[in-house]
Amino acid sequence: MADQHTPQQTRVAPDLPPKLAAIAHLFTDQMPFNRSLGLSIPYFTCDKVEVHFAMHEGLIGNPIQRILHGGVTASVLDVAGGLIAIANFLEKSDTMDQALLNKKLAKMGTIDMRVDYLRPGRGEHFVASAEVIRSGSRVSVCRMELHNEKGSQIAFGTGAYMMG
Amino acid sequence: MADQHTPQQTRVAPDLPPKLAAIAHLFTDQMPFNRSLGLSIPYFTCDKVEVHFAMHEGLIGNPIQRILHGGVTASVLDVAGGLIAIANFLEKSDTMDQALLNKKLAKMGTIDMRVDYLRPGRGEHFVASAEVIRSGSRVSVCRMELHNEKGSQIAFGTGAYMMG
Amino acid sequence: MADQHTPQQTRVAPDLPPKLAAIAHLFTDQMPFNRSLGLSIPYFTCDKVEVHFAMHEGLIGNPIQRILHGGVTASVLDVAGGLIAIANFLEKSDTMDQALLNKKLAKMGTIDMRVDYLRPGRGEHFVASAEVIRSGSRVSVCRMELHNEKGSQIAFGTGAYMMG
Amino acid sequence: MADQHTPQQTRVAPDLPPKLAAIAHLFTDQMPFNRSLGLSIPYFTCDKVEVHFAMHEGLIGNPIQRILHGGVTASVLDVAGGLIAIANFLEKSDTMDQALLNKKLAKMGTIDMRVDYLRPGRGEHFVASAEVIRSGSRVSVCRMELHNEKGSQIAFGTGAYMMG
Repeated sequence: MADQHTPQQTRVAPDLPPKLAAIAHLFTDQMPFNRSLGLSIPYFTCDKVEVHFAMHEGLIGNPIQRILHGGVTASVLDVAGGLIAIANFLEKSDTMDQALLNKKLAKMGTIDMRVDYLRPGRGEHFVASAEVIRSGSRVSVCRMELHNEKGSQIAFGTGAYMMG
Repeated sequence: MADQHTPQQTRVAPDLPPKLAAIAHLFTDQMPFNRSLGLSIPYFTCDKVEVHFAMHEGLIGNPIQRILHGGVTASVLDVAGGLIAIANFLEKSDTMDQALLNKKLAKMGTIDMRVDYLRPGRGEHFVASAEVIRSGSRVSVCRMELHNEKGSQIAFGTGAYMMG
Repeated sequence: MADQHTPQQTRVAPDLPPKLAAIAHLFTDQMPFNRSLGLSIPYFTCDKVEVHFAMHEGLIGNPIQRILHGGVTASVLDVAGGLIAIANFLEKSDTMDQALLNKKLAKMGTIDMRVDYLRPGRGEHFVASAEVIRSGSRVSVCRMELHNEKGSQIAFGTGAYMMG
Repeated sequence: MADQHTPQQTRVAPDLPPKLAAIAHLFTDQMPFNRSLGLSIPYFTCDKVEVHFAMHEGLIGNPIQRILHGGVTASVLDVAGGLIAIANFLEKSDTMDQALLNKKLAKMGTIDMRVDYLRPGRGEHFVASAEVIRSGSRVSVCRMELHNEKGSQIAFGTGAYMMG
């Protein structure tokens, strides 16, 4: 699980705007469960996010076939959806007082999520991507995809996210 | 994370029928990702399953509020749904040749799952339960719930599962 | 389709509190699509609602098997979920100014819904019921069920609803 | 509701392969509930389907805003998903005996569906499109979209469909 020892600065794209960089580091470094997944965020704008991770022993569901646990797939799709929901919210809240913004972010959460498992989770490297398809002042809806390094789509997701 | 060192025999109810016991041990002990969740299965029949786990550092999403990561919730609901889908299938396949049964089990998988996050995942001990609401020869649909030790419902799930 | 000519006063339980009665009549009588479904609401409190309807030619999907169209099932589950979401919101908004309340109700809508089709929609009379499982100030999540007159469960649903 | 009197031959694209034409006519003409929606199918291949319909009084949920009932949206998305699931199945079953094929088609059904309501259903003409994202021998998963004549996306859907 060498991936877990990657220096922090390489986990998140170095050229992100400060607000997005802060959110990205929060998700990759400060959430214990996400750290065990070994997530990195090489691409992150208000329109789209990419969350990368490498296969490692701890992510396996079926040990014989060495495929991702369905819960790992769901977890990473939820992370990608949450990130893009926050980014979209930040973009619309550009003039919002920072204290109010922090208060709203603290209450941010997933309302519901659907995951469609399209293919067995085989691969060495995985990319979860997400974009917003409903952008509301309090609720956003996002769609997410998980692909492996060969470009095969492993899962599809839809999630509704709430801001404070 | 003392829970991870609990002797194997206490992870699964000692009085299960052999087929259910084998499935329960497969999920608690042989799936690497499930081991890190620290799951135990104290109740398991063809009608209902209970999957227990204790809060520990590695399951936390929000470190300030110390609440479960949404991906952990999704993972455990998927485990509970998968277990009861298999048990229900085994009950209907009582006379099936063991070789065919194994082949079908190997292809067992989640088709899709919806998770509704009802309350923040606070607690020390959690119980995921599941039951079958559509019992088909190839596809079963299950509903799942997650409660904490105080009886507060944290999440609700619905999943469709396929057998070989 | 005699059901469509049932006098209006019998479509809604006669003893409802005025606010719930107004909502019930809005759904049964003033929404054109609902009128064609022939809905009645014999039970409606802040905790649970029942929406009844009778099979008629216009609701049929498969004409050979004479079963409900899946879209009818989805429609009625959505109506039941929407009704109980509104009732739950009204209960929490007891002291809210009527003008503000009306403004919020006008913006009420379904965010998303999942329907699980458990059995073919056979029957003469159907009952959709709904209850709230997450009760927020802006978003509620409801679960819904559809049974026929023999008590067979035909469908299960989960929906997220937003208020103003 | 002039649309309902459109001659049958214009409801379905005139140049479809016979098997797809038969399925298209089954959905547009022989399912009573679909007839009341006024559906036509101008595009239908094994990869993608388009289902068109015009706004009319009977499809309205909110009479003041004149927007589509959420149940209509769900119904049409389910129709589009079902059509493409069948087409995809037919393509893989090219050499299947017609009697067996008919038997399987008769048992075809929606397992579950999620609908995300992205914008109020305003418009004069609507297009539902669908494609298959998981193509199995028994279960297919489809994603569906609903747009109005201005190209605004009104809803997004995901559904799992079973064959015999």
